[in-house]
Amino acid sequence: MTDDQRLIAGLQPVREAIRVHGRRLSRVVVDGRSLPRLDALERFARDQQVPVVERRPKAELDRIAGGTMHQGVLAWGPPLGLTAPESLLDDPTLAAIALDGIQDPQNFGAVIRSAVGVASAAVVFGEHSAAPLTPATFRASAGAVEHARLCRPRSLSGFLRDAAAHGVTVVGLDAQATVSLSDVDLSGPTVVVVGNEHSGIGRGVRRACTVLARLIETERIDSLNASVAAAIALYELKKQRVKSAS
Amino acid sequence: MTDDQRLIAGLQPVREAIRVHGRRLSRVVVDGRSLPRLDALERFARDQQVPVVERRPKAELDRIAGGTMHQGVLAWGPPLGLTAPESLLDDPTLAAIALDGIQDPQNFGAVIRSAVGVASAAVVFGEHSAAPLTPATFRASAGAVEHARLCRPRSLSGFLRDAAAHGVTVVGLDAQATVSLSDVDLSGPTVVVVGNEHSGIGRGVRRACTVLARLIETERIDSLNASVAAAIALYELKKQRVKSAS
Repeated sequence: MTDDQRLIAGLQPVREAIRVHGRRLSRVVVDGRSLPRLDALERFARDQQVPVVERRPKAELDRIAGGTMHQGVLAWGPPLGLTAPESLLDDPTLAAIALDGIQDPQNFGAVIRSAVGVASAAVVFGEHSAAPLTPATFRASAGAVEHARLCRPRSLSGFLRDAAAHGVTVVGLDAQATVSLSDVDLSGPTVVVVGNEHSGIGRGVRRACTVLARLIETERIDSLNASVAAAIALYELKKQRVKSAS
Repeated sequence: MTDDQRLIAGLQPVREAIRVHGRRLSRVVVDGRSLPRLDALERFARDQQVPVVERRPKAELDRIAGGTMHQGVLAWGPPLGLTAPESLLDDPTLAAIALDGIQDPQNFGAVIRSAVGVASAAVVFGEHSAAPLTPATFRASAGAVEHARLCRPRSLSGFLRDAAAHGVTVVGLDAQATVSLSDVDLSGPTVVVVGNEHSGIGRGVRRACTVLARLIETERIDSLNASVAAAIALYELKKQRVKSAS
């Protein structure tokens, strides 16, 4: 009955989903034990007119969540809206982070959170080149996925080549690069590409970049987590835009 | 027999510990199953002259690790050397990140990793105000803890007051602040204070700061993970220093 809906688990993700979607959520299920944080969440769901709000035994939530930490709350929300690649390419103020080969849902969710929090940036990931959009990813994004502009082109390198052809600056982060990111002009439409922690950016994707840049002078290949590298790049982009606007 | 030694778990943490400490590790234990990555780690430990290198059944590693992910490898290394607060205060190029109330070992380890990777910064945490230095923290630091300058003053707010009295710039990150971090001069000796994700910086610690700053113009209180906020602040500090040195 809720097959076309998206399962959301955990206090912060569900709270954010209620805040953003309200009555468009089909159902919120809360652990039956009376605990202040669970009671508060139930009240919030009712206040925001979620059509079905139920208390259920913890074992039932465990079974539905199938291993994802749920902290006593689950919700079924509308499917994530994906943005068409073309609409990103037509955006003259495009700020996006592209993920090449990120497999860890924690990292994927963390990047979504930083993209929204640091620079209101879109997140681009190829169909086969990133962790899937699962409840674990939504959870790691701490609810930010409800606000995120997500784009999943069939081929990431194809998308980046199109972007470059549209005049978008496509920056690949690479610890071996001689250029520093802060010396690249990020004030126009920009996509920053972050690679997998183990192997960096793949060859086809690398060739599609218009420039390769390192984050800091002393960077070592394995010194930064991919989601941290993404957050720093988004900060640099945001700063350049604030400066060029003032 | 290895009670005074520190337990290290996981492929990358153990590899980094072997690289840094070599024969000063007392023991490396590898899952007995013959797998290329485990065999390679055993060879590396022998090459680096770790005194005792053993293969053991997985169940024995599980029992010793007690819940920490070990990926088939454990090591016992020298205790972490802690830096005395005084020696930080006497450092004219001090760069440090101070953690107030970070409870999550994942976040703690991630901050250590970024501190080492982004700005070779020290990490300061009060005796009772941060997650303990456990194998889970070492693991989340991806081996960076072996290179980190760690300092655990009895009282974090006391340390920060001493630092301010020594002329150190003590910046508290606060999404409500009117000053942007990039407008604060971080080129002199500096400690950046990061609060707990839920409650921010505590009152006593906040009073000890010489300036409060936000990271970005549009920051929302709950928009960034604490370890991401720390990494961005360290990047800003590093950039200012590279610029002032050139």
